[in-house]
Amino acid sequence: MPESIPIDSVGLVKPQAYHFEEPLTLRSAKVLPSFDLMVETYGELNSDKSNGILICHALSGDHHAAGYHSMSDSKPGWWESCVGPGKAIDTQLFYVVCLNNLGGCAGSTGPTSINPQTGKHYGPDFPIVTVRDWVKSQVMLMDRLGIKKWAAVVGGSLGGMQVLRWAISYPSRLANAVCIAGAPKLSAQNIAFNEVARHSITTDPNFHEGNYLEEGTYPKQGLMLARMVGHITYLSDSAMRVKFGKSVTDFENDRANFGRDLRSGKLSFGLNTDFQVESYLHYQGERFSENFDANTYLLMTKALDYFDPAVDFDGDLSKAFADTNCKFMLISFSSDWRFPPERSREIVNDLLKAGREVTYLEIEADQGHDAFLLPVPRYIKAFSAYLKRIHQKIINDAT
Amino acid sequence: MPESIPIDSVGLVKPQAYHFEEPLTLRSAKVLPSFDLMVETYGELNSDKSNGILICHALSGDHHAAGYHSMSDSKPGWWESCVGPGKAIDTQLFYVVCLNNLGGCAGSTGPTSINPQTGKHYGPDFPIVTVRDWVKSQVMLMDRLGIKKWAAVVGGSLGGMQVLRWAISYPSRLANAVCIAGAPKLSAQNIAFNEVARHSITTDPNFHEGNYLEEGTYPKQGLMLARMVGHITYLSDSAMRVKFGKSVTDFENDRANFGRDLRSGKLSFGLNTDFQVESYLHYQGERFSENFDANTYLLMTKALDYFDPAVDFDGDLSKAFADTNCKFMLISFSSDWRFPPERSREIVNDLLKAGREVTYLEIEADQGHDAFLLPVPRYIKAFSAYLKRIHQKIINDAT
Repeated sequence: MPESIPIDSVGLVKPQAYHFEEPLTLRSAKVLPSFDLMVETYGELNSDKSNGILICHALSGDHHAAGYHSMSDSKPGWWESCVGPGKAIDTQLFYVVCLNNLGGCAGSTGPTSINPQTGKHYGPDFPIVTVRDWVKSQVMLMDRLGIKKWAAVVGGSLGGMQVLRWAISYPSRLANAVCIAGAPKLSAQNIAFNEVARHSITTDPNFHEGNYLEEGTYPKQGLMLARMVGHITYLSDSAMRVKFGKSVTDFENDRANFGRDLRSGKLSFGLNTDFQVESYLHYQGERFSENFDANTYLLMTKALDYFDPAVDFDGDLSKAFADTNCKFMLISFSSDWRFPPERSREIVNDLLKAGREVTYLEIEADQGHDAFLLPVPRYIKAFSAYLKRIHQKIINDAT
Repeated sequence: MPESIPIDSVGLVKPQAYHFEEPLTLRSAKVLPSFDLMVETYGELNSDKSNGILICHALSGDHHAAGYHSMSDSKPGWWESCVGPGKAIDTQLFYVVCLNNLGGCAGSTGPTSINPQTGKHYGPDFPIVTVRDWVKSQVMLMDRLGIKKWAAVVGGSLGGMQVLRWAISYPSRLANAVCIAGAPKLSAQNIAFNEVARHSITTDPNFHEGNYLEEGTYPKQGLMLARMVGHITYLSDSAMRVKFGKSVTDFENDRANFGRDLRSGKLSFGLNTDFQVESYLHYQGERFSENFDANTYLLMTKALDYFDPAVDFDGDLSKAFADTNCKFMLISFSSDWRFPPERSREIVNDLLKAGREVTYLEIEADQGHDAFLLPVPRYIKAFSAYLKRIHQKIINDAT
């Protein structure tokens, strides 16, 4: 827990639930009769409501992007590195909105919610939601907030995919699209890793075809394993060599140990946990499996797999961008092997082909896909500068 | 099954078990009182026994490297692409020996064998064996065969690690070491993937702490999942894009679909198997889990994790190579991200530092780590040429 709130934090924040009584028709053709969205906002909306920034979250994120819910919180929100007074997404300049996506497990309607039609948890009956559906519900939230046009929609990873969908489907509703560590669609390898995660959850004997809440059980092992696999793909090989190779102090001159630090100084010659990296994965998996809903995890991976904005345009993403009407910023990280720089360059190329205005940054960073959540200096500087220019334009337009 | 045996196959072969009554002290300090090794040989040993080649197998391999056990076999041995008359490892020139490693599940003593001291399956009581132990047992086999010096010891992946251990520990017993798609030791990322595999097996409720045979069960789901993860790391992202992107026929000009071919032409909007790559992984996992022992899989991954020949030399691999006495060939594949070319270059650099004679080939190949098992033309050509020179030297030395 923080002894005091850091000066560059938004401080104590309180999420708010928005109820939507109007039905939402999903891409699957299923209809959600009504739903809730759990939302956090930071900063103040200006008088002409032109300084709104929407943050879209990734696979395991939620509405709690920044600040603390109480003084006993051990950690701030998931994007504390980028959101706060004086930070890249400067809450002194912008009104920042972040929500838990539909199908989530942090307060918005999802598999752990009660289905009003049955009085029981939705569980596995919660429909598959897509990036398109999320953005549709985000537009409803935007309307409720009285915002006509976002100054920017921003997000990393799966969040960046929502950004692209915003630009394509609602061209008049945003001025800027900031897509960080994204991809135009998943590759077979990406899908394969997701399927391993799903398979580990659905074959856990405690899964009960998704009805674990009704059964009073929980597929903890399956979810833990899913997260362990996921976690490997968020880190780079080189970052892991440093993180788990601390016994090598002089990394340049010593022989690198490739991240092979042992837990107890010697090998067990048994099936025990020998290496630090194994303990770390167990810890990450454990912690995640205690705080996340398995059905939500399944949904989120399907939303990732299904995302393909070019699908309505004969597979040609540049055609999908033809009617967009915002400026774009794309950022990628050199060591990200989940969504490597070439995936962002594909998006950039198709934006250029469509004649769009694009700023593209390829950041040298060792931390892999996770870099988008970390205070990598060049990344933060460039991101800050871009958003400052947006704010300057808002001021210029108003005067 | 083959309708007829291909002309470049070794044809019908029969494995043979060799029993060793002498105890084997393992690196763990445990002792195997006696053991069997299951062996296949191809070709003829020459009169001065100088044309022997030892093949070391990888994680899921065994003694059956080439040919067929019966006319009803659906597939030949695992290295049919490289072993046979006129092939890279030419059985008309060499006497080729391949064995199932200790701890395996294809006939050599391992967890599925009966422990003579208890009359029950070894199961989880089978000791952890290391690459060093394997090579030690391979020397005993060599002595039994009456071979003083191998013309070459060859292997890919974990097999390549055994090759390095041979060169370091038994410098007078081999003339050439051919290490393909190997690494000097695993990185944290490699270990992490192995730990995911182990965790999926050991948390399967049917694992029973390794006593599944005694319990009459089998951790099929855990082993299936382990193989699914492993399989992703054997393929490259680009190979998967081609393999599962066949609906794109004009790969250059069409928009690549990133390997996103669907099973049934449309998305299920459920938790069904949507993409071809998912079916493929299920199939591979299923097939493997029906034919492999879970305790063996655990052992093999530990042998991989533990391998580190520099450990006795202050982490300096070049010192480990100081007393080697053979020539080296190293081969790596451009798209192999499990053991990428830079891992082979690390070995090459330390061999050069130690003043050894090294031939190194970096092969452009799209197939990832699996390339070492496939008939990649430049690879086969170079490998053939190297072994032909070895054979020429054998003839020259004899005359």
